[in-house]
Amino acid sequence: MKLADLPTPCLVLDRQKLLRNIRSMAGNLARLQVPLRPHMKTAKSIDVARLALSGQPGGITVSTLAEAEYFASHGIVDILYAVGIVPAKLDQVARLNASGANVTVITDDPLSADAIAAHPADIKALIEIDCGEQRGGVLVAEDLISELANRLGSNLIGVMTHAGHSYQGRSVAEITQIAELERSHVVYAAQRLRNEGHVISVVSAGSSPTGRHAETMSGLTEFRAGVYMFGDLFQAEIETHARDSIALTVLTSVIGQPSGRLLIDAGALALSKDRSTELTPNDFGYGLVLDIHGEPALGGAIVRKAYQEHGVVEPGPNSMIATPVGTRLRVLPNHACLTAAAHDRYHVIDGLDEIVAVWPRMNGW
Amino acid sequence: MKLADLPTPCLVLDRQKLLRNIRSMAGNLARLQVPLRPHMKTAKSIDVARLALSGQPGGITVSTLAEAEYFASHGIVDILYAVGIVPAKLDQVARLNASGANVTVITDDPLSADAIAAHPADIKALIEIDCGEQRGGVLVAEDLISELANRLGSNLIGVMTHAGHSYQGRSVAEITQIAELERSHVVYAAQRLRNEGHVISVVSAGSSPTGRHAETMSGLTEFRAGVYMFGDLFQAEIETHARDSIALTVLTSVIGQPSGRLLIDAGALALSKDRSTELTPNDFGYGLVLDIHGEPALGGAIVRKAYQEHGVVEPGPNSMIATPVGTRLRVLPNHACLTAAAHDRYHVIDGLDEIVAVWPRMNGW
Repeated sequence: MKLADLPTPCLVLDRQKLLRNIRSMAGNLARLQVPLRPHMKTAKSIDVARLALSGQPGGITVSTLAEAEYFASHGIVDILYAVGIVPAKLDQVARLNASGANVTVITDDPLSADAIAAHPADIKALIEIDCGEQRGGVLVAEDLISELANRLGSNLIGVMTHAGHSYQGRSVAEITQIAELERSHVVYAAQRLRNEGHVISVVSAGSSPTGRHAETMSGLTEFRAGVYMFGDLFQAEIETHARDSIALTVLTSVIGQPSGRLLIDAGALALSKDRSTELTPNDFGYGLVLDIHGEPALGGAIVRKAYQEHGVVEPGPNSMIATPVGTRLRVLPNHACLTAAAHDRYHVIDGLDEIVAVWPRMNGW
Repeated sequence: MKLADLPTPCLVLDRQKLLRNIRSMAGNLARLQVPLRPHMKTAKSIDVARLALSGQPGGITVSTLAEAEYFASHGIVDILYAVGIVPAKLDQVARLNASGANVTVITDDPLSADAIAAHPADIKALIEIDCGEQRGGVLVAEDLISELANRLGSNLIGVMTHAGHSYQGRSVAEITQIAELERSHVVYAAQRLRNEGHVISVVSAGSSPTGRHAETMSGLTEFRAGVYMFGDLFQAEIETHARDSIALTVLTSVIGQPSGRLLIDAGALALSKDRSTELTPNDFGYGLVLDIHGEPALGGAIVRKAYQEHGVVEPGPNSMIATPVGTRLRVLPNHACLTAAAHDRYHVIDGLDEIVAVWPRMNGW
């Protein structure tokens, strides 16, 4: 089976680029002497997880308990569920752990801390620290950190943070600074709790941009990142990922050319409505168009509009390439996590047009 | 099982509102004396399709061949695939039809028309007309209409159009005018082809806004609409759907309140990144927040930010309602088609908190 034979739209994953990206992040972290706990929220695939875990201790990060169930059922049991837990979800964690998994949860909330401590299962927890993103997490100066540690008691094993604001960085220098904020905040929180007599064995930080541009990870016991495996246009625009190393594309067919417009069968569902390149140096609309071989096409064409199943391609300037109905194109996504989530499998290539494997992915909650 | 017992995030579908919406559109079309061919691209559920077909001749519209396969396997065989066909997809249509389905395709392209005419299976086709949306379709003044009809030969059975630009309408009066453009363009195209000696038995038009506000459907043989079944905030903003008749919500849990922010477990994946209310009178961010009973909550709170699994709720002015971790909320979606597509089932309620059914939905291609 070749790319020209696949029904469209569908996901294509270039294993050569995937492996290059995985080795690159692993090399960075090896140099910084911190093990990687890959975040599987982007790939949601056991096949990708096995590659990402190569040379690492074996633990992963997930964003849903459905991911935890899926990966545990495939033998990956050391799991950090890195979205704030609510008491109603603790029973599911306990069942997973009773079946052989080792799921750790995170919290920034006193009620949840109490529920974790009161739960009959011995569920381990990290306190979530806000290192400046202003999403989840406790600020390091808040007394709430000590309160949460005291409420969690022996369930507390560490602290974690995520520099999501590294996505706001627009240069390597900025991201390097944010990486240092990420590191220093969570290390400070760990030290504060240790000074208060708590045993803190896990000091976890991570995001793909800071994983690429951090200069030191001193004091961290692990690092988490996910989108680096595939990369996407947004990561390329913030200089975290080379554009020609983006491993994920959506294969699509030209379905019409009415009045000179170019319509493809990859629309909002196949690409997502993510517009994260809207404010980056290059605005790629809903994605950058490549030819079937993954080379730039139509003079730098982008997907300008995304209806449910129709994409409208805007060719670049001076583009005169003929694109009859049925022509296959590939679209680089703005945001790999969201684009991949619309699909249930990866069609894997090794740089060429041949499909060498089909890897299922899981979705939902 | 009650709403309070469901794992979050998940879809909730209010059957009372669904039935009200279905009856309302059916009543409109009965008054205008045109049968409805419901578009199943929003619901993608056999249970919803059966309700939508009540009192109608029995045909549906779909946006993917995967939908056609799914509905045909559940016994609904009269299907219009309303996205431009490409030659490579004709074999799948032929196989479906050989197995008992009756899938009609659409085209605006000479190469596809030739491929339809040349295919050994007798696949019926409609010519797609552009009534002003400038997406797919031939303009009625173009000679291409006659050329396509001649190329299709006996495979041609009619014409179709979709006034997608009715979504740009911002008042009932505007949408009524666009409905008349939709009707008159496709009826004119049918008459032109009849004058040229072609047999045109299908004259199909449709969108939810024009289905609600059209004053006449004279000359049409069928009408297509889909999102009317559920409704959404965008449809409410353009006065096509009452906000309190939106049947679809996402059930979510409060997962944290760091530094006074309110985080929920419905983010970009559970809600979609659709921002179609951005330019309507009310900008609802990524959705309008209701309480677990479906009543307005937190002073008109909206989901202001959507990370992959985190939503950040912005309470309305003067909102002082306590929302501890674990509190359940429901979020009205901007765009039902995209929000529903992230989920694999509907948790059905009958206006109250009890789950009376679970209806699966299909996704993908």
